[in-house]
Amino acid sequence: MDSIIHALDLVGTAVFAITGALVAGRKRMDTFGVVILGCVTAVGGGTLRDVVLGHHPVFWISSPHYLAIAALAAIGTFVVAHRWRLPEMAIAYADAVGLAVFTVIGFQTSFQTTGSFGISIIMGMTTGVVGGIIRDVLAGKIPLIFHKEIYALASLLGASLLAVSIHFHWPAPLALPLAILATLGVRIAALHWNLTLPTFPPKYLSPAE
Amino acid sequence: MDSIIHALDLVGTAVFAITGALVAGRKRMDTFGVVILGCVTAVGGGTLRDVVLGHHPVFWISSPHYLAIAALAAIGTFVVAHRWRLPEMAIAYADAVGLAVFTVIGFQTSFQTTGSFGISIIMGMTTGVVGGIIRDVLAGKIPLIFHKEIYALASLLGASLLAVSIHFHWPAPLALPLAILATLGVRIAALHWNLTLPTFPPKYLSPAE
Amino acid sequence: MDSIIHALDLVGTAVFAITGALVAGRKRMDTFGVVILGCVTAVGGGTLRDVVLGHHPVFWISSPHYLAIAALAAIGTFVVAHRWRLPEMAIAYADAVGLAVFTVIGFQTSFQTTGSFGISIIMGMTTGVVGGIIRDVLAGKIPLIFHKEIYALASLLGASLLAVSIHFHWPAPLALPLAILATLGVRIAALHWNLTLPTFPPKYLSPAE
Repeated sequence: MDSIIHALDLVGTAVFAITGALVAGRKRMDTFGVVILGCVTAVGGGTLRDVVLGHHPVFWISSPHYLAIAALAAIGTFVVAHRWRLPEMAIAYADAVGLAVFTVIGFQTSFQTTGSFGISIIMGMTTGVVGGIIRDVLAGKIPLIFHKEIYALASLLGASLLAVSIHFHWPAPLALPLAILATLGVRIAALHWNLTLPTFPPKYLSPAE
Repeated sequence: MDSIIHALDLVGTAVFAITGALVAGRKRMDTFGVVILGCVTAVGGGTLRDVVLGHHPVFWISSPHYLAIAALAAIGTFVVAHRWRLPEMAIAYADAVGLAVFTVIGFQTSFQTTGSFGISIIMGMTTGVVGGIIRDVLAGKIPLIFHKEIYALASLLGASLLAVSIHFHWPAPLALPLAILATLGVRIAALHWNLTLPTFPPKYLSPAE
Repeated sequence: MDSIIHALDLVGTAVFAITGALVAGRKRMDTFGVVILGCVTAVGGGTLRDVVLGHHPVFWISSPHYLAIAALAAIGTFVVAHRWRLPEMAIAYADAVGLAVFTVIGFQTSFQTTGSFGISIIMGMTTGVVGGIIRDVLAGKIPLIFHKEIYALASLLGASLLAVSIHFHWPAPLALPLAILATLGVRIAALHWNLTLPTFPPKYLSPAE
């Protein structure tokens, strides 16, 4: 089970690095900027989680292969993008896999040291969404998670389901895939049917801004 | 005294969460984005303070009710904004209360572990202003504190007054309210009379930018 | 040797504070914003390095003179800019000195605690480039390092050269200046001849963005 989770963690790392590289490419960043943004996107969420919980050094210092995989994925994206146009939707779906896996891994990492459901749900979300937030801020964009289809909510639901399954002592080989599939399912449904949450009513908008 | 400070801390948390929710609403973020930006605004300053000082886990991990209050305040803002238009100035005045309270609490938290006036003044300012900086960056704006009426300076003055009062052994029930009122007074005076600090002279501005 | 490195560290701190103050001035930030952005630019990279490695409190808490020098340099920049127009290129060259010195200091700080070449190269780059990234994000710009002449790559080369020289037991009085000069040389060559790295091919650019 652990080895499957670890494999998925590496897949999530590569996938987030690819999304970082693509955003960097669209913003006309250079080769090295592509690699840096790929790495930052891939490890940003887990870094904030470790810093906030007081785990140090952070995970990619003790396990440098995360950075190596992220850098390779970003370089690979750069090479491939010189030949083929990558379909937008394929990336969004891959990003959903990263979100789902990182949510579960973030929850577990936190639960092992804090033993708290509430904190671990928040740390699962943090691990899942913060890399993409940093990516968008560095690229000069308002982070996607704030104004697109349901994103962070998918992560919240997946992490909460994991908390429920631990509370009721469901076996890990059942609970972990279930939480990953729930996050993935909600996010892909949101992409597919353009599901969004309500925003402030237009009448509220300040005329002076 | 401690319970009054703690009560004010919770008020500051709620008030900053409301400002985060309002900025999120104006940027057309969705319900969940409103809650996240509210929480980040409310706990951002104290988080950086704790991380820099090496207090871990950070305060909202050991005391989760801060996040709960911030989330409730953000949701409440969202609900209320569907019915009434909140006056801009009321928010700016409430934000001044948050700035004043967080400055004093940040100073105290730091002074208890470092015993240094200089560091604690900086940590007071950090606690007071960083949440708003993160809020504005995530919303794609240049942080308000850099180009609006006197803001960070009010926090610096309040924290410095607290340092002076501790140096001269003034009793806490006198020193703490005084520092809060000084910060609040300077900030509200700046809002009321549009007090600003000088900027670079226009002739300096680079033509190429 | 150590005192030369320490002197250069203070020079790097002042120089980065000057670049922060100039960016703040161009964005019409007020006097206090100029000082804050100067300080954040000067200590931002070392702060992230210390937080990620788990060194706490961070260096400018234990050695407050870094912040004092940064604040003085920012104020000095503000005063001077009221009289003379500072030449752009002089700043860019000075910034290159900061990049070179901070890369070497970041590498050393990390190598003393981790003993890892790979991690220390990354920490050297982090110390060298992150202050400027935070400066640009707070000023509402896409960070320079992502789309201008070779910048982070110069830092990578300098830090890698230092790793090689430690591996082969070169004496520190040879290795440290060499790494600083290599970083500086690559960055200044890039500035002088407008050397850039390749970007994504235009055909890749998404039409919808």
